[in-house]
Amino acid sequence: MKLDVLLTPTELLPSEISGRTVVVLDVLRASTSIVEALAAGARTLYPVATIEEAIGLAKTLGRDEVLLAGERKALPIEGFDLGNSPGEFTPERVRGKTVVMSTTNGTIAITAAAGGARVIVGAWLNFQAVVDELVRTQAEPVLLCAGRDRAFGLEDAVCAGQIAAALVKALPDVEWEMNDGAVAALALAEEFSDPARLFPHTAAGRAIIEAGLGDDLPYCAQTDLRDVLPVLDGRQIVLAAVEAEP
Amino acid sequence: MKLDVLLTPTELLPSEISGRTVVVLDVLRASTSIVEALAAGARTLYPVATIEEAIGLAKTLGRDEVLLAGERKALPIEGFDLGNSPGEFTPERVRGKTVVMSTTNGTIAITAAAGGARVIVGAWLNFQAVVDELVRTQAEPVLLCAGRDRAFGLEDAVCAGQIAAALVKALPDVEWEMNDGAVAALALAEEFSDPARLFPHTAAGRAIIEAGLGDDLPYCAQTDLRDVLPVLDGRQIVLAAVEAEP
Repeated sequence: MKLDVLLTPTELLPSEISGRTVVVLDVLRASTSIVEALAAGARTLYPVATIEEAIGLAKTLGRDEVLLAGERKALPIEGFDLGNSPGEFTPERVRGKTVVMSTTNGTIAITAAAGGARVIVGAWLNFQAVVDELVRTQAEPVLLCAGRDRAFGLEDAVCAGQIAAALVKALPDVEWEMNDGAVAALALAEEFSDPARLFPHTAAGRAIIEAGLGDDLPYCAQTDLRDVLPVLDGRQIVLAAVEAEP
Repeated sequence: MKLDVLLTPTELLPSEISGRTVVVLDVLRASTSIVEALAAGARTLYPVATIEEAIGLAKTLGRDEVLLAGERKALPIEGFDLGNSPGEFTPERVRGKTVVMSTTNGTIAITAAAGGARVIVGAWLNFQAVVDELVRTQAEPVLLCAGRDRAFGLEDAVCAGQIAAALVKALPDVEWEMNDGAVAALALAEEFSDPARLFPHTAAGRAIIEAGLGDDLPYCAQTDLRDVLPVLDGRQIVLAAVEAEP
């Protein structure tokens, strides 16, 4: 069974994800915030690439029905309702709302992955839910690391490697066919096992600290805080029902 | 001092390499073959992207003066004089000649790196020569992994990590400022220390074996076989004088 990790989003070729399940990882912070938004009861979330697109979509949907969220250079966008800190997406703020989100890397990666048969948003927050779903569907997943400004981001690679390791462990009889990215991610996951210790040493983590949002790092490192599975449905991200354990 | 590793060539931004020394790594096999060609006495080597460009340049330079070399899908190109197996570049074949080479990944990466202040071609074959030069010049190097068809190639990342580790060891008093790619490459170099054992497990290595050229793998794993430093000079790759030890 195929198991591929794309260490940077520019590696994504449409032919490579066709018919496959793509897990998009931007753990610092877009995919973590998306998990939080939907776990907190947001009705739906639109990932969009540009600020203009976000504002236009909010107008179309009705500005009062929409929460605009996102960041540029780690900081909240002027005129938007929320930034990209996962702790902002509380039930009080987002329950029943439509969120339109634009972030530098994560939402762009999700849009690029739209050609996959299924697109799941993964983070440490919903780690086991993602693994369980990949085990249940016996999908041949592509784990897509969103990275940073087209470049490699270590935290996403480590998360991908930990998902890959959990999948291999859960399906011991499968003969895996891995790309070089998956082999590397597995090794990196062994080397950097603790996200809370890793984050401050990554470029993304340092940028978040410099922006004065250092509290986001331990938040994003919380493993299995949420048992939810955000999936792309057309242009929107919604919660998939998580299958009960047999 | 900055030390960056770009794990895929698509990460290269012209602004990032401006003024810096770029080491291009495509150890399976273009950079290894370039080292061999120049160590065997080739006068100069032109890396070009396309087959048409190679044939056109050979006509301009005078077809009889030129050896056309390169590969597509690991195999020699029809009508060319040499493939991309390093063992083909013997003194008998190449001494005094001009080589025009087109390979799938390596020569494209070298061309992309041309905006650097200095471009060095590195491989395990000339590992120590590359490290010595980076130590001597106290350059802030960018180690550029050529990878495979825009995607990550593990062998180049491991070579980059070993170069980075040797550099850090040789300059213990330097405070290094590394990108995420460098941190990852250092970890991968520790995990996969022996290129001869690594190669058959990489996508590039498997493709070379499938093409019937498996003998190339142990050839490319020979560390420090050559004490030469191929550098880009305009459009050509030539040997730089290796400084004598003090």
